[in-house]
Amino acid sequence: MKIAVDAMGGDHAPQAIVEGVALAQKDFPDVEFILYGKENEIRKYLTTEHNVTIIHTDEKIDSDDEPVKAIRRKKNASMVLAAQAVKNGEADAIFSAGNTGALLAAGLFIVGRIKNIERPGLMSTLPVVGQPNAGFDMLDLGANAENKPEHLLQYGILGSFYARKVRGIGRPRVALLNNGTEATKGSELTKKAFELLQNETSLNFIGNVEARELLNGAADVVVTDGFTGNAVLKSIEGTAMNLMDLLKAAILNEGFKGKMGALLLKDGLRSLKSEMDYSKHGGAVLFGLKAPVIKTHGATGPDAVRHTIRQIHTMLETNVVGQLVEQFEKPAE
Amino acid sequence: MKIAVDAMGGDHAPQAIVEGVALAQKDFPDVEFILYGKENEIRKYLTTEHNVTIIHTDEKIDSDDEPVKAIRRKKNASMVLAAQAVKNGEADAIFSAGNTGALLAAGLFIVGRIKNIERPGLMSTLPVVGQPNAGFDMLDLGANAENKPEHLLQYGILGSFYARKVRGIGRPRVALLNNGTEATKGSELTKKAFELLQNETSLNFIGNVEARELLNGAADVVVTDGFTGNAVLKSIEGTAMNLMDLLKAAILNEGFKGKMGALLLKDGLRSLKSEMDYSKHGGAVLFGLKAPVIKTHGATGPDAVRHTIRQIHTMLETNVVGQLVEQFEKPAE
Repeated sequence: MKIAVDAMGGDHAPQAIVEGVALAQKDFPDVEFILYGKENEIRKYLTTEHNVTIIHTDEKIDSDDEPVKAIRRKKNASMVLAAQAVKNGEADAIFSAGNTGALLAAGLFIVGRIKNIERPGLMSTLPVVGQPNAGFDMLDLGANAENKPEHLLQYGILGSFYARKVRGIGRPRVALLNNGTEATKGSELTKKAFELLQNETSLNFIGNVEARELLNGAADVVVTDGFTGNAVLKSIEGTAMNLMDLLKAAILNEGFKGKMGALLLKDGLRSLKSEMDYSKHGGAVLFGLKAPVIKTHGATGPDAVRHTIRQIHTMLETNVVGQLVEQFEKPAE
Repeated sequence: MKIAVDAMGGDHAPQAIVEGVALAQKDFPDVEFILYGKENEIRKYLTTEHNVTIIHTDEKIDSDDEPVKAIRRKKNASMVLAAQAVKNGEADAIFSAGNTGALLAAGLFIVGRIKNIERPGLMSTLPVVGQPNAGFDMLDLGANAENKPEHLLQYGILGSFYARKVRGIGRPRVALLNNGTEATKGSELTKKAFELLQNETSLNFIGNVEARELLNGAADVVVTDGFTGNAVLKSIEGTAMNLMDLLKAAILNEGFKGKMGALLLKDGLRSLKSEMDYSKHGGAVLFGLKAPVIKTHGATGPDAVRHTIRQIHTMLETNVVGQLVEQFEKPAE
C-alpha cells in the first residue's frame, strides 16, 4: 500500500512529519511512502530511504491561505501533488497536518466524492473518559456549515462502517446529538434525521444523546451537523485546555508546596493528560471520499503522525473505503 | 421589591431553597419574599418570618412532567402560582430551581413576552477562566430549538443590556458564536446574523468568536441559536465534570502518595473548582419577558440560591427589564 504524505503541512513540518514517517516505517514494512516537499529538508529527518520516494517541490499551502483559491492556484503545492497522486492511482491515501480547509477542498475537488454520498463529513475518534482505549466516532465535525437530514443519515452509515471495519466494534451504537434525549426533542433538522436514522434497519440506532454525555461513552458513533459538531468539538477542546492551564496555575501558585504536591501526583497527572489526548486514535478522516484523506492537528508531533499512519494502514487493510463505494454505488434494487 | 419563590423546585427543595432565602434575608432587608409550597416544610428552614409570606400549596411540578401540559393542568403548582403572582403584579420577579421546560413555559405563557421580542432566550453568565470575577453572558442556551437571524440580533441587544445594567460593563463586546473568526464564515443563519449585528450601531459588535475561545473571555456577550448554545453549554459542563472526575480518580489511584499530593494542592484544587462554578453569577435568566424569570440548577444549594437572589435584586434595582420594555415597545420613529 502506498501513502502520499504532505511533508510540508503543520507547525513543525517537515521535521515532525518525517520523523513520524520514520517511526511508522519500522511498524509497517508493507507501506510505501511518497513524501512531497523540499527534498533536502525531508532527507535530513529520514533514517532510511527504504520504501520511501521523495517528490521534490518548493511550493506549499500556508495555514492562512484561502483554501479553495490555494488548491486551484498553487498547483505544485505539496498537498496538491499528494492529492493528485491519489487521484491518479499512484497512491492509495493522503495524509496532511496542514491547512484544514485546503485539505477538505483538495479531498472534494481532486480526490472526489463517492457517488451518492452528498456531503462527506469530517470524523474523529474522540476519547471516552475513564476508558483509555475506548473512543467514539463523531461526524460531521465541520466539513459542512449546513446539513440536511439525509446527510445525517449518511453520517450514521459512514460512522457505523468505520467503527465496525476500522475499530472492530461488532454492532456500533449510533446516536444523534440532540438537545434532549426524548424522541420528540430537537430542531426540524434533528427531528427529521431521527426518523431517518430510526427507519434505517442496517443501523443499531440508540436514539438521541446530549453533549454532556459524549465523553462518558454514551455511543460508539455520534451523528451531528457540521456547524454543531464543530462548536461541540471546540468547546470540549477549549474547556479541557483551560482546565489543564488552571491546574498548572494552581500548582505554581502554591510555590514549593505545589511543586511537591505535583511531584507526588506526577503519574496521575500524566494519565489525565494522556486520557484526553485522542491523537492515539489517529487523525480526522474526511469520510465519504474515494480514498482515505486524513488530517492531523497542525501542532502534531512524530508520535501522532505514527498513530495516523497506523490508522491509514488499518483503513487500507480493511478496505473500508472500497466497501463504502460498493455499498453506495450499487444500483437500487 | 417582591420576589416570588417556587420553594418546591429542585433536587433539595424545599430545604436548600428556603435556607438560601434565609441567607438572602440578611443581605437584602429591602426584599419581600413570597414562598410557594408546603407551609409546614418551608417553616422548618426559616430563621425569621420577617419580610416573608408563605402561600401554602400541596401541588408541585415534577422534574419529569411534560412542561406545557404540567403548567396547564397543575394550576395550583407552586411554580404556576408564583408565575401568576408576577403576572398579577403581586410580585416583581420569579425564581425556581425546578423543571426548566416548565419554567420556560410558565414564563412565556403566564408572565408573557415583551412586545416585539419574538423569542426570549435563556441566558447565563459563564466563567472566564483565570479571572475569578469575570464572566460572559451567553444566549440562547436552549429556550428555542431553532432561531432566525433577527432573533440573534435581539439576543445581542438583550445581552448587551444585561451586561451594562446588571454587570456594570461600560461598552460590552458582543460576539457571534461561529465556526471561524472570518466575517465570511458560517451557516446561512450566522452569515445573516453577522450582517444584522454589524449594522446595529447601538452595539459594540466585535465579530465572530469560536467555541474554543469562550472561556478565555473573548467577549462579554456571546450570541448563538438555542440549539448550538445548548450543545456548547452541555459540552463545557460535561468536559469540566469529566476532567474533575479524572483528577479525583488520578489522586485515588496513587494511594497514600496521591492523598499527600492532594493535601498539598488542596487550596489550588479548591480554587480550580470555584473558578468553574458559575453559580456565583446567579441563575439563568429567561430574558425578553415582562419580568425577571430566573432558573437555577436543580442540584443547587443555599449559596447558589443566595447568589440568585442577589442577581434578581440587581435586576430589579436597575430596572433592566423595565428599560428593555421601553426600548422594544417604543413606536418606530
